[in-house]
Amino acid sequence: MKKYVYLFKEANASMRNLLGGKGANLAEMTNLGMPVPQGFTVSTEACTKYYDDGKVISDEIINQIYAALTETEKVVGKKFGDSKNPFLVSVRSGARASMPGMMDTILNLGLNDQAVEGLAKLTSNPRFAYDSYRRFIQMFSDVVMEIPKSNFEAILEAKKEEKNVELDTDLNADDLREIVAGYKKKYLELKGEEFPQDPKTQLIDAVKAVFRSWDNPRANTYRRLNNIPYEWGTAVNVQSMVFGNMGDDSGTGVAFTRDPSTGEKKLYGEYLFNAQGEDVVAGIRTPKPISELEKDNPAIYQQFVEISNKLEAHYRDMQDMEFTIEKGKLYMLQTRNGKRTAQAALKIAISLVEEGLLTEKEALLKVEPKQLDALLHPQFDIESLKNATVIATGLNASPGAATGRAVFTAERAQELAKKGEPVILVRQETSPEDIEGMAIAKGVLTSRGGMTSHAAVVARGMGTCCVAGAGSVKVYEEKKYFEVSGKKYHEGDFISLDGSTGRIYGEQVKTVDATVSGDFAKLMAWADKYRSLKVRTNADNPRDAKVAYEFGAEGIGLCRTEHMFFEADRIPAMREMIVSKTLEERQNALAKLLPMQKKDFIGLYEAMQGHPVTIRYLDPPLHEFLPTEAEDIEALAKEMHLSYEELKATVESLHETNPMLGHRGVRLSITYPEIAVMQTTAVIEAAIDVNKRGGKVIPEIMIPLVGELKELKFVKDIVVKTADEVIKKAGVDLKYLVGTMIEIPRAALLADEIAQEAEFFSFGTNDLTQMTFGFSRDDAGKFLSDYYTKKIFENDPFAHVDEKGVGKLMDMAVKLGKEVRPDIKLGICGEHGGDPDSVEFCHKIGLSYVSCSPFRVPIARLAAAQANIKNPRS
Amino acid sequence: MKKYVYLFKEANASMRNLLGGKGANLAEMTNLGMPVPQGFTVSTEACTKYYDDGKVISDEIINQIYAALTETEKVVGKKFGDSKNPFLVSVRSGARASMPGMMDTILNLGLNDQAVEGLAKLTSNPRFAYDSYRRFIQMFSDVVMEIPKSNFEAILEAKKEEKNVELDTDLNADDLREIVAGYKKKYLELKGEEFPQDPKTQLIDAVKAVFRSWDNPRANTYRRLNNIPYEWGTAVNVQSMVFGNMGDDSGTGVAFTRDPSTGEKKLYGEYLFNAQGEDVVAGIRTPKPISELEKDNPAIYQQFVEISNKLEAHYRDMQDMEFTIEKGKLYMLQTRNGKRTAQAALKIAISLVEEGLLTEKEALLKVEPKQLDALLHPQFDIESLKNATVIATGLNASPGAATGRAVFTAERAQELAKKGEPVILVRQETSPEDIEGMAIAKGVLTSRGGMTSHAAVVARGMGTCCVAGAGSVKVYEEKKYFEVSGKKYHEGDFISLDGSTGRIYGEQVKTVDATVSGDFAKLMAWADKYRSLKVRTNADNPRDAKVAYEFGAEGIGLCRTEHMFFEADRIPAMREMIVSKTLEERQNALAKLLPMQKKDFIGLYEAMQGHPVTIRYLDPPLHEFLPTEAEDIEALAKEMHLSYEELKATVESLHETNPMLGHRGVRLSITYPEIAVMQTTAVIEAAIDVNKRGGKVIPEIMIPLVGELKELKFVKDIVVKTADEVIKKAGVDLKYLVGTMIEIPRAALLADEIAQEAEFFSFGTNDLTQMTFGFSRDDAGKFLSDYYTKKIFENDPFAHVDEKGVGKLMDMAVKLGKEVRPDIKLGICGEHGGDPDSVEFCHKIGLSYVSCSPFRVPIARLAAAQANIKNPRS
Repeated sequence: MKKYVYLFKEANASMRNLLGGKGANLAEMTNLGMPVPQGFTVSTEACTKYYDDGKVISDEIINQIYAALTETEKVVGKKFGDSKNPFLVSVRSGARASMPGMMDTILNLGLNDQAVEGLAKLTSNPRFAYDSYRRFIQMFSDVVMEIPKSNFEAILEAKKEEKNVELDTDLNADDLREIVAGYKKKYLELKGEEFPQDPKTQLIDAVKAVFRSWDNPRANTYRRLNNIPYEWGTAVNVQSMVFGNMGDDSGTGVAFTRDPSTGEKKLYGEYLFNAQGEDVVAGIRTPKPISELEKDNPAIYQQFVEISNKLEAHYRDMQDMEFTIEKGKLYMLQTRNGKRTAQAALKIAISLVEEGLLTEKEALLKVEPKQLDALLHPQFDIESLKNATVIATGLNASPGAATGRAVFTAERAQELAKKGEPVILVRQETSPEDIEGMAIAKGVLTSRGGMTSHAAVVARGMGTCCVAGAGSVKVYEEKKYFEVSGKKYHEGDFISLDGSTGRIYGEQVKTVDATVSGDFAKLMAWADKYRSLKVRTNADNPRDAKVAYEFGAEGIGLCRTEHMFFEADRIPAMREMIVSKTLEERQNALAKLLPMQKKDFIGLYEAMQGHPVTIRYLDPPLHEFLPTEAEDIEALAKEMHLSYEELKATVESLHETNPMLGHRGVRLSITYPEIAVMQTTAVIEAAIDVNKRGGKVIPEIMIPLVGELKELKFVKDIVVKTADEVIKKAGVDLKYLVGTMIEIPRAALLADEIAQEAEFFSFGTNDLTQMTFGFSRDDAGKFLSDYYTKKIFENDPFAHVDEKGVGKLMDMAVKLGKEVRPDIKLGICGEHGGDPDSVEFCHKIGLSYVSCSPFRVPIARLAAAQANIKNPRS
Repeated sequence: MKKYVYLFKEANASMRNLLGGKGANLAEMTNLGMPVPQGFTVSTEACTKYYDDGKVISDEIINQIYAALTETEKVVGKKFGDSKNPFLVSVRSGARASMPGMMDTILNLGLNDQAVEGLAKLTSNPRFAYDSYRRFIQMFSDVVMEIPKSNFEAILEAKKEEKNVELDTDLNADDLREIVAGYKKKYLELKGEEFPQDPKTQLIDAVKAVFRSWDNPRANTYRRLNNIPYEWGTAVNVQSMVFGNMGDDSGTGVAFTRDPSTGEKKLYGEYLFNAQGEDVVAGIRTPKPISELEKDNPAIYQQFVEISNKLEAHYRDMQDMEFTIEKGKLYMLQTRNGKRTAQAALKIAISLVEEGLLTEKEALLKVEPKQLDALLHPQFDIESLKNATVIATGLNASPGAATGRAVFTAERAQELAKKGEPVILVRQETSPEDIEGMAIAKGVLTSRGGMTSHAAVVARGMGTCCVAGAGSVKVYEEKKYFEVSGKKYHEGDFISLDGSTGRIYGEQVKTVDATVSGDFAKLMAWADKYRSLKVRTNADNPRDAKVAYEFGAEGIGLCRTEHMFFEADRIPAMREMIVSKTLEERQNALAKLLPMQKKDFIGLYEAMQGHPVTIRYLDPPLHEFLPTEAEDIEALAKEMHLSYEELKATVESLHETNPMLGHRGVRLSITYPEIAVMQTTAVIEAAIDVNKRGGKVIPEIMIPLVGELKELKFVKDIVVKTADEVIKKAGVDLKYLVGTMIEIPRAALLADEIAQEAEFFSFGTNDLTQMTFGFSRDDAGKFLSDYYTKKIFENDPFAHVDEKGVGKLMDMAVKLGKEVRPDIKLGICGEHGGDPDSVEFCHKIGLSYVSCSPFRVPIARLAAAQANIKNPRS
């Protein structure tokens, strides 16, 4: 018989895949002898089985849960539903990867009409008991039975009105007893049956509800954004309740072993006396800093410090812990590796090495490559900042600077962002429903909640700037404005946030690019030491190339020459080329482009200081350079001294049904070899020019969209002939390479043939993904959301390389290419080149380098190091 | 040292690849002791080397040619340039596959100022000698030196005018001597050097010219149309000249051992006294039937009959022979397997089996599958024919009936045909330049030339109807009309041809489908006996299905259900479905389509009489069902009781950048599962209906455009659920299969996963080709001509499966699919399913069946048999 349920004392931290992070760590803390309220974990396999069985928990699993329950009752010395000493539990999700707030939790489970009396007697606090019971009924009804909370809130509000009080806490035990009666009546009315009195029924229903919540829309979105497979499922932790709300000798809190914003080594957190954990996390009451616990209760504080030190040393990483104090006794409810800002991640990784807890390699694995992005985010321009007025200050919840238009709902954030507007999401507090709006916003501002509130935790995870708990900001979400010191800021008004200081500005403040700190440089140096993949950049102009070089790019992996042609001073010559009727006319137009291209290439070579520069020849279909609307054609015709009809005819003749699959890439050079001649002349003349001044340029000429050896051969012959003539004429020596993109499935399939002519391959995984899947990125948006909803795709193949399909072609191409040309250079220049998962894949299949946008270069460097540490190249 | 040059006596028929068809057969005839003018063959490898070396004939090859020349001079007892007994040769191309008229020929090579005198003395005929010399100068200048013939024709015409004569034959030896002098002067004037007097120089230049002609545009076009690789190259045959124009005891002719139109066993051909071979083939003089040779020269006729019988028995196939009689002595210049009509091909194949010359399998290999097409071509509708008037009669050069608009140039034929107009190409005579126009015309009419004229031979090869040599038709190509009995027919006027009777009609005559003869049925029965591939048809309606069933289809491999929706009575409901805003509206619209689909499926099942029927679910993007022009939208909106804006918004929301890569195929069923529900209901209800009436339908449901297992699983779950409910409700048993198309590269790469759910695969090679190559068929037209011209592609990947790329994916998918599901059904339903080469490939990789359009079914049956005879399945 398969084991689906584990007591905490039966498990340990290595069982994370089976028991989820929370469950495995509760077990580990139990084994470490720490004060953990005992309980058990229902495994992720039970969740998977629940779905496989058609959303049913099998009798086998139910029996194992009951057995574990009995065992736990013995350990804690309480019994489910007992009128004297009732056993109450929390039921919480716990997946392999942390998904904060995405799934459901039920507290105080086990309360019924009998147990509530037991709890009242045991605590000598009937008010507390009935308050717990009414909370439980509401939570259970909401989470398990899907009865909207508003039904119960109305009853509560009615009672408060009746008693003419403002706060829940002003209600006494009798009031609450009546409220419970009202809740139960409402439940009966809505569900047609009594509120379940059997705690075992409550438990199984709650477990089922947690399993079900694995599949709720916000969890699915979160998983997709964080690349967490649906197959993993969630575990469920059933843990005996401890109460932080049993009076002033009780309390609850969360703390980090180091500052999650800066990485500073000091206990960092918050706590509230006489409160349940949810009160801290939800950000409804603003809690006290953890340091004050030392004054409030030195013994507990000391115990907690010892535990936290022990946990950090044990896990060799910064810990994020939850604790509860029940009548003067400390309980640990959770520990996990803490989420942190990029800056903190760097500092912690480096400190842990310095403290001798980690090796450099281990430290490199502790930093999430994507997080580095935050360090590279814009900061405010100092000059602009001088004139800006701070209208309020909140908590510096997630660093970086942001400016944008205020919006008050996640939906509106998405609408405006889609139109290209920068937005700042302003909320009283955020909830998991806001996650997509937060992802798309430049910054997040909340008026409530602390450093561990939902807004703060999620924004840090995303690397989005966030100012939280700005109490002086009154947010009116429904009315779409916020007010500070009597001044209203409406939807669409510009505001700015500094997530590193917590300052809020009521205007647009210019932002500038970030500079990278000493920790950053140190970690990057380690990364460079341990990686075997080179990292290049995709840059089309000297400006981007310089930025990338500063970020450590070791060359240009992709220069899209067409981007140069779209610029205002070049497009007239480009258009002239396109409308040319004869070879001669075309050559004349190209001759105008030549000096501009040459100048660009000189700039690129110089920016790269001797590192290789890969130049891709003209790729897009020619109609992209011409207008399509009648009036634009009219205007351009006038400008070009053509008749409207003439230009219109050219535009029409260039129209394509499927432009992605049209006359572009190498196909252009086959029809118009003179384009390749011009581009080669520019590439080679520029290199000669730079080398004459001491440069060491070896240009890499890249032919796009090749699917057949003869295509490459045809263009390569032109390139070589032209290049050799230019070199001969200049009377110099110059090496250059000619290679191709592998972006057509056929090129991957026939890579051995193509390697006969190609001196390098660069995987163009954008197009390769489109053609391998048979959908275009422009059109897939319409149906991909259905694909996510229906779980056909779990993540976006344009974000992470589809290893099974596209990756299989890549792997095949690598092997075939090396058979023919063992020293072939192999790179990737699709957007996947900056995605850490894809970088790891590229490392595994044996590429020589990845190339990505300048701001992704540090991410790729770290990802490459991690890949090599995890899978050392032999 | 590699041998590049072979004397005829050194070689044999098996050396066709090295020496070309003509060379190998000349060698074989030499070995058989037949009277062949001796000579030697320069190999195809020499041609390849010529191109590899940059269009240069290496010294090594030149020396081998000279050595063979010396050897041949000894054999024939003549010497190059000899003033007494000069050695003259013909220099002719000869590729591995016959390419009639596509490459260059030079006759009388070896003549110079000395040799012409020798020839005059030797033949006692100075007129003949100088006429030969002037012809040689003109031909050499034209073919080798690329001097336009008109330069020389002007000199000839001037002399005729001076002498006041009409015919060349009215010029005497002195006149011709002067003309030669004029020609040489012209040559010197144009080339700046004397006409080459050294026969060895002439020879090498001529060989070079033949090699060069391998690469001329018409040869390239012919190869592409006939799928002949460029790499093969041509051999060059250097053969001692014999003269059919040495007086009335000389002559020349061509003959077939059987009638190439009907297959009847009788010597069939034509000859001309006192003429050179070119005169017969070019169709300038109308020759006598070969039977008259028996009267004219019984001894020679008898000798020729014996030789032809011997050759047919030796080659075990109908032979096409060229001969020359020089002063009463017969010489064989060529033999080859004769081109024949489809009808003749059948009759000959069957007769040769009956005569004991061939086995059934060998006979099957003698028939070109594509030729069968001609048998299936339309014939005239008998009723329409009754009222039609024959305006003239020509030779019945290639069978079939055709009706179309008269055009007078190949270019115009192509222009009109592209607009969808049927055309008849009308010419005085055709030449190789006309080949593309002939390929696209419904029929060809010429006023000159015989059964072996260019027009006749080429049209038969293409299966295009042709009436040749219609002397009463006066064709004025430049003025774009022809005249018969004083009536003019202009470009664009309808005419009709009967290629089987030679009758010409001056009007449009309705055509009807062909019925197939007894020989056809016999050959097909043999084909069925020896093939292992099944042959199905692509049919979307009962009418096509019935035709295909009569042609031997063993099921439907592809029913495109959307074709049903485009019909006038269905498209309103389809559009209603598309503009639906709710699931309910959509279901209502689908409910209207259900009975129509069901009725169609009943018709298909009945037509197939128990053979499997594969139904593909809705495939095209929905916007294809809606109009795009404003006025059409307006009209439809009115019809649908929608506002213009509403409908316009729907149309716009469905617009796609790359519709081929858009929201179509399985993606539609994922967004709108109700479509799959409706289609499944129709498929299953129809099957139950037919089976209740004694049918044995096992429907095969095919999901298109799958690229991922979960896509298929999602839709299959819906299909199975729906089908099982319908079956249960009907209280019957019904088997059905659910499978998928393999048309997305990713599906082929992950075929093992997909086979977990797919009970069959059907290769959709149209889309698979588009996506593997990364170009769409709609757009590739614009650049594929450049690809042919620049020899990047030699043939159309949409006509023949690209075995290296697309085929590699197919082979991979077959192997992966079988690993998981050893009994998986494997088919192809792209247009390649009717292409003989592709059928052979499908056989080799182990498919279960091919599916093609109804008229291609017999072709596929024969191709499948040939494939299995050549590569028997173990």
